[in-house]
Amino acid sequence: MTYITSLKCVHCGREYTPEQVTYYCEVCGYHDGILDVIYDYDTVRRELNPESLARSTKYSMWRYLPLLPINNPGLIPHLQVGWTPLYEAPGLAGELGVARCWVKDEGRNPTASFKDRASAVGVVKALEQKAPRITCASTGNAASSLAGFAAAAGLPATIFVPGRAPAAKVAQLLVYGAQVFSVQGTYDQAWELCMQASAEFGWYNRNCAINPYLIEGKKTVSLELAEQFMTLTPGSFPDWVVVAVGDGCTIGGVWKGLWEMHRLGFIPRLPKVLGVQAEGCKPFVTAWQENTCLVPGEANTLADSIAVGHPRNFCKGMKGVTESGGAFVAVSDNDILRSITTLARKTGVFGEPAGAAGVAGVRQAVAAGMIRPDESVAIIVTGNGLKDIQNAICAAGQPVSVQPDIREVRQAVAASGKC
Amino acid sequence: MTYITSLKCVHCGREYTPEQVTYYCEVCGYHDGILDVIYDYDTVRRELNPESLARSTKYSMWRYLPLLPINNPGLIPHLQVGWTPLYEAPGLAGELGVARCWVKDEGRNPTASFKDRASAVGVVKALEQKAPRITCASTGNAASSLAGFAAAAGLPATIFVPGRAPAAKVAQLLVYGAQVFSVQGTYDQAWELCMQASAEFGWYNRNCAINPYLIEGKKTVSLELAEQFMTLTPGSFPDWVVVAVGDGCTIGGVWKGLWEMHRLGFIPRLPKVLGVQAEGCKPFVTAWQENTCLVPGEANTLADSIAVGHPRNFCKGMKGVTESGGAFVAVSDNDILRSITTLARKTGVFGEPAGAAGVAGVRQAVAAGMIRPDESVAIIVTGNGLKDIQNAICAAGQPVSVQPDIREVRQAVAASGKC
Repeated sequence: MTYITSLKCVHCGREYTPEQVTYYCEVCGYHDGILDVIYDYDTVRRELNPESLARSTKYSMWRYLPLLPINNPGLIPHLQVGWTPLYEAPGLAGELGVARCWVKDEGRNPTASFKDRASAVGVVKALEQKAPRITCASTGNAASSLAGFAAAAGLPATIFVPGRAPAAKVAQLLVYGAQVFSVQGTYDQAWELCMQASAEFGWYNRNCAINPYLIEGKKTVSLELAEQFMTLTPGSFPDWVVVAVGDGCTIGGVWKGLWEMHRLGFIPRLPKVLGVQAEGCKPFVTAWQENTCLVPGEANTLADSIAVGHPRNFCKGMKGVTESGGAFVAVSDNDILRSITTLARKTGVFGEPAGAAGVAGVRQAVAAGMIRPDESVAIIVTGNGLKDIQNAICAAGQPVSVQPDIREVRQAVAASGKC
Repeated sequence: MTYITSLKCVHCGREYTPEQVTYYCEVCGYHDGILDVIYDYDTVRRELNPESLARSTKYSMWRYLPLLPINNPGLIPHLQVGWTPLYEAPGLAGELGVARCWVKDEGRNPTASFKDRASAVGVVKALEQKAPRITCASTGNAASSLAGFAAAAGLPATIFVPGRAPAAKVAQLLVYGAQVFSVQGTYDQAWELCMQASAEFGWYNRNCAINPYLIEGKKTVSLELAEQFMTLTPGSFPDWVVVAVGDGCTIGGVWKGLWEMHRLGFIPRLPKVLGVQAEGCKPFVTAWQENTCLVPGEANTLADSIAVGHPRNFCKGMKGVTESGGAFVAVSDNDILRSITTLARKTGVFGEPAGAAGVAGVRQAVAAGMIRPDESVAIIVTGNGLKDIQNAICAAGQPVSVQPDIREVRQAVAASGKC
């Protein structure tokens, strides 16, 4: 059983029971009618509180089960997901010009990205519904995490990728045994084909933008942040939580988790949320700055995980920043590349471009006076740098070439001043 | 303080105090005089026992501090290392023809390999000795983990790589800010240059084959196995522990940890150890089968982490298998590639070639009658598949190409029998 009271349409406000609806508001349709999962928080609080968590030995996102839409916990696959490390990074704080800085390394999840939290929930929902197969359209972390969790659960998966998807990313899906359709067309065409196939074959649809339960997995990163800070810095919480933004689902989940942990009394006050986009793909930044609706645009950035010109979850994404009194910033691809090395060298955490973009975003927000030097920030690093070695090579620089002769090393060491 | 009673030469048996010696037996030299760290186990047991571990909230390899050579725990860097997940894998057990099978996913460590356990110890020892810099020669996981942990600790690092090292692997070192010397010569020349530079500049030497403390980090994988099985299957332990073998340090560490946990009463009996090598690089297999000394040979295998023709830690590596009554097997590169997909599809764990080689090794050992069908195995997957995407592409197969038209999907689904 769950503590869900209703699924509420973010567009029209209609409420449904979980039995009445599978994915989206039938009146508003799947472009607008995204549903939000509402819980009975007073009852949740009786099961989920500082005392119950102190007793819990489930070191994974499943320690927050009363806040998750899971009817049958017996179906949860074995892969350990969530409960990722949170590090304080004084060197990075100094570099960025803030009072204190923490980094949450989501690259430590089973398939090396934040998306595992969503796929874990998606796979359990598919099993609960006895779906014969689960599907999504993606070339990136959502696809690889779905393939990994489907394999772990013994659930067949079909993934639609656009024809131009890089061989390396497709390989990971195939290694996990997913059926992969390479669609000779655009990403949008792959997405529509996935929607059609899901409807026709009864495959469970893991596309986060239309499936209300996926974001419930994503929010667990904030549930963890709240609990981890309760231990690290009792009675206080960072002023800002920082995350890169693509289709809006991630930042929407981050905000929902923060809101819930405040509602349940785990954190003393709500932080501001900083959403970071790339200069070449910034529909949220534009809409927020100009106070307009979404205008889909270009997707020109090397940070592929946030290269989303037409965000499918604009509403929930925008809500996170506006309700929190936060901000959106855009950073250049050069800044993103530089942030990969800054993050790795100051903390030992190697992030993929979108994962490190939060670091560039803080730098930008400090320069713009949005974040004050006396404020503290928690940056969510959403994916592992090993996911995108090509961009790491661009960021990294070159080694020093020497002959196998100690005299050459001596000269190079003297020249570098490093000895 | 530590509970070390002596450092004992594996070649001549001479014993030293930790203050008398830095790396190896001065009489036997660094080719033969590898030291073994000996503890006062009776005293260790008073601090490290099932009750103390049940109370511990350190979810990392540092929960075994009384069994580690650390004088100053305040110098331990922040990266969460060890306490990796252990999964039971009934589907894989069925596939391999054994009674039960577990997989320990070492790719979940901070830089995505088992080697992080050793680098973590190396960095602390360097800081304890106030070394100005730490160094090693490697192109693989030892180097990337050293670069990551050195960055986390704020300790400068210099890494010697052979000129032919792949750009992707070198990039990771540079991202972490290590000084990287690309030596225009062989791996052996890079290794010798590293030894010279370490001696000349006083850089701390992380090369596992000559540094007695590194293997102490590696053994923690077995300390965890013992504790995790104590919870999972109280009173019993798998019949076999399986790991791929390169220079012998890893399997040596695995055996030492098992031996210690048996000595301390955590496991009821010692398992047999199965060492897995590649057909094209099998000096341990040959020496074990023919009961001879080490004959260095070729290193022809795609599993780069175990492509070691001249193992530097032959003695400790051989000891693990012979003392345990275990075995060595060699598997073909094709078997290794096939084991990547078998492992990923049956468990959701994506391993690099050497990481998945243990799966191929079990299959081989069952076929040869070394492992009986009623026996149980624990396989250590030493590194993440994202470390070697090129070989994953070889293992993965191809996607199904379709036009953006549901009729093509319909046909393909019908043809595949997957719906």
